[in-house]
Amino acid sequence: MAFQLSEKTFKVPVDLFITNRRRLSQTLQSKVQPNSVVLLKGGVETNRYNTDAADLPFRQESYFFWTFGVNESEFYGVVDVSTGKSTLFAPRLDPSYAIWDGKINNEEYFKNKYAVDEVIFNDKTTTIADYLKRLGTKNVYLLRAENTDSGNTLVEPQFTGSQDFILNTELLYQELAELRVIKTELEVDVLRYASKIASEAHRAAMKHMKPGLYEYQLESLFRHTSYYHGGCRHLAYTCIAATGCNGSILHYGHANAPNDKFIKDGDMCLFDMGPEYNCYASDITTSFPANGKFTDKQKVVYNAVLNANLAVLKAAKPGVRWTDMHLLSEKVLLEHLKAAGLVTGDIDEAVKARIGAVFMPHGLGHLIGLDVHDCGGYMGDAIPRSTLPGLKSLRTTRTLKENMAITIEPGCYFIDFLLDEALADPVRNVFLVKSEIDKYRGAGGVRIEDDVIIRASGNENLSDLPRTVEEIENFMASGEWTERIIEQRVSQFLTK
Amino acid sequence: MAFQLSEKTFKVPVDLFITNRRRLSQTLQSKVQPNSVVLLKGGVETNRYNTDAADLPFRQESYFFWTFGVNESEFYGVVDVSTGKSTLFAPRLDPSYAIWDGKINNEEYFKNKYAVDEVIFNDKTTTIADYLKRLGTKNVYLLRAENTDSGNTLVEPQFTGSQDFILNTELLYQELAELRVIKTELEVDVLRYASKIASEAHRAAMKHMKPGLYEYQLESLFRHTSYYHGGCRHLAYTCIAATGCNGSILHYGHANAPNDKFIKDGDMCLFDMGPEYNCYASDITTSFPANGKFTDKQKVVYNAVLNANLAVLKAAKPGVRWTDMHLLSEKVLLEHLKAAGLVTGDIDEAVKARIGAVFMPHGLGHLIGLDVHDCGGYMGDAIPRSTLPGLKSLRTTRTLKENMAITIEPGCYFIDFLLDEALADPVRNVFLVKSEIDKYRGAGGVRIEDDVIIRASGNENLSDLPRTVEEIENFMASGEWTERIIEQRVSQFLTK
Repeated sequence: MAFQLSEKTFKVPVDLFITNRRRLSQTLQSKVQPNSVVLLKGGVETNRYNTDAADLPFRQESYFFWTFGVNESEFYGVVDVSTGKSTLFAPRLDPSYAIWDGKINNEEYFKNKYAVDEVIFNDKTTTIADYLKRLGTKNVYLLRAENTDSGNTLVEPQFTGSQDFILNTELLYQELAELRVIKTELEVDVLRYASKIASEAHRAAMKHMKPGLYEYQLESLFRHTSYYHGGCRHLAYTCIAATGCNGSILHYGHANAPNDKFIKDGDMCLFDMGPEYNCYASDITTSFPANGKFTDKQKVVYNAVLNANLAVLKAAKPGVRWTDMHLLSEKVLLEHLKAAGLVTGDIDEAVKARIGAVFMPHGLGHLIGLDVHDCGGYMGDAIPRSTLPGLKSLRTTRTLKENMAITIEPGCYFIDFLLDEALADPVRNVFLVKSEIDKYRGAGGVRIEDDVIIRASGNENLSDLPRTVEEIENFMASGEWTERIIEQRVSQFLTK
Repeated sequence: MAFQLSEKTFKVPVDLFITNRRRLSQTLQSKVQPNSVVLLKGGVETNRYNTDAADLPFRQESYFFWTFGVNESEFYGVVDVSTGKSTLFAPRLDPSYAIWDGKINNEEYFKNKYAVDEVIFNDKTTTIADYLKRLGTKNVYLLRAENTDSGNTLVEPQFTGSQDFILNTELLYQELAELRVIKTELEVDVLRYASKIASEAHRAAMKHMKPGLYEYQLESLFRHTSYYHGGCRHLAYTCIAATGCNGSILHYGHANAPNDKFIKDGDMCLFDMGPEYNCYASDITTSFPANGKFTDKQKVVYNAVLNANLAVLKAAKPGVRWTDMHLLSEKVLLEHLKAAGLVTGDIDEAVKARIGAVFMPHGLGHLIGLDVHDCGGYMGDAIPRSTLPGLKSLRTTRTLKENMAITIEPGCYFIDFLLDEALADPVRNVFLVKSEIDKYRGAGGVRIEDDVIIRASGNENLSDLPRTVEEIENFMASGEWTERIIEQRVSQFLTK
């Protein structure tokens, strides 16, 4: 079996998760003692506060999903390292489930659905420990996973009878996160689909856009297109549907700034939105004029960012350090701003003085996978997080490897707080032309973000969008964009 | 100030929350010692597991929202019982917030926005205790709130220096929940808008429906219509977009049964979906044939449920016990099923034998407000939860009062598990005509759910939908349903 929401959406083969488990046991075989297993706990459904409702359904925890592909809550799973044998522990459902929630499936159903070797209902407190003893287990590897973006930790699961085993919570995080960093082709296929759906939803928003709408209406259309045509019920992150000055608020769209601005003629739009399909994320940003026609100033900023994006897409190769890509994007950006008169002086010196971070305070991009900001950014050969502006916001500093999935998302923003600070700083203000910069204040920002698979043979850009000024203007000006067209485009992608 | 997402959506006056706080302090004045305050803690933003992302933005905790109307996370609030003085404690934001999240607002901004007497940044561990001492506080009333639907408890907030006060966690839950049960007209106005938007979104789904679509596509359109035309970013609960046999799975639509069925000619649709606006919920169910034309059997079931719905709408008055309304709905339902030949014998006896619960295992309806299953159902003059089928699923057993908001949602389902059980039971099978019932198996179910304000002068039904067989068939058959029509209908509602 496999996951496929409907005949109109992408079919995720169960091989994806069989392959993941094989990679896991193979990786661990040389690193653990005999009689070792991995024990993972899946997510548990939660509702709002103390209530019994939530607006969206359960979404699985990503490490567990990577290993087992299980969509349901309250599962545990075991992988025997030496044999690769996989076992799922499913919750024993109350008979009333049949009335309220649907068919109660048996062990065979889950065994087929997830292609594991065994399924056991977890209905005794000792079910898991009993099983591990039958298996002759001595060492149990548990996941205790930090997250370098949030600072939060996923704590290791507790289970009755655990005192009878040697528990290890050190090894698994490093190994599992590293496996998640390098995507298999089966995983790339799902990421490619998620980005395709994101691209179609962005196209729908661009075609629908006109001054007089509100930002949230485009967020709504984006979400609808992703779900109706792509089967993406969840988003990978909260939608940023920023226009005008809001484009300079990097994480706009949250509860305190809820995409509620009226869109005016002359506004630039910065839409950073991405759905996920079967937990695999997309993360794409489009920037375009609300009225479909760039002004000269908008062109300056847009082309600066586009060229930074393209330069990185070309230069990012296995063996190249991401920090250097960040600096490259700053350099290209500042060269364009110099040509337009906003920046002056030697550009290499400007980069050293961190002028890039005045216009682009965020990192160039991040690993992407089951989480939009995927794990492993500060593992492997990563250099420690910088303390310098811009560089300190990098979510990874690693050298690139074949089949990493990463976003390339340079941006250029006019943030009063940062501009004023830099203009008041004698080390930095020598590079800045205040009179020219002031003409751009209030205009918001531009970000161009693609999801990219790193390939030695040339990177694969998963986005499918009009990107040059001409392409965008032509796309927005040309004819109708119907539901039928979107449906055909998705269908063509699936049959390719 | 007030909450209004845009000029196209409903304006919630800040008076709503001023009134709520006045009701709270007035209620408590006779019940507490002098120098007493209420201290509430707002919700704290959470993300998925250990990551830094979530698909939807922060949603405030409902008791805190009722009292202060605050949309932002990490607030505390105090109400001085004797004076009614209200104070908000806002989080002190890091200066970097200006880059990532937007403008940092000052005390005056929040004071105006939420019409409280004072705003203090909560930047010292002792900020709250210091303030309470300045106020001369002796008793602090904290909220510890059970939830009789989920069984979960909202625990009281901790704060540094609390040992200097007399803490009480007993009184507030009863008082605050009871205040939430009886809606002010200002609250009814928001509930009416939420139900209007739900109705428009249901109409859009009905007009769009045709065999050959998938269930989730209608969920998607519902969500889009609610947000695009109504400004409802959140749903009050997970969408149930059931068709055919899935109509008999009462809580269909969750992660294990994700609205993924192909819709066939002849299917009945049971769509139980409701958005929320500024945290106020709607909860509406429509049942209709996917092809727009009822079969004779579908008419039998539909009219049985519709008449049960209408009988309760008429009979539900202040002073009437909800349990009796549940039994009334069962009686009407069974009378119709008897007329159609599925049930036999004396209907009063059948109700006593709990035959109603064979066809309608859930409760007739529930209080609704800031939570879809609102608080207070087993307070006041509620009788303890029954152990009998159907009755045990009631979320309230209270007598109705003026300005309660409650759903009326009778249903009739053909659930093999329950039918087989009853047909094998000699006490119950004498009321059941197996040969006739068997003809309806696999057809799913019908539920007709309205959100209703209880009024002595005649209840107000907040739904605005075609409900009779003729109305539904005419509505589905008649002309186009455009975005422009929906926009005009919402606009007309707002200017009424």
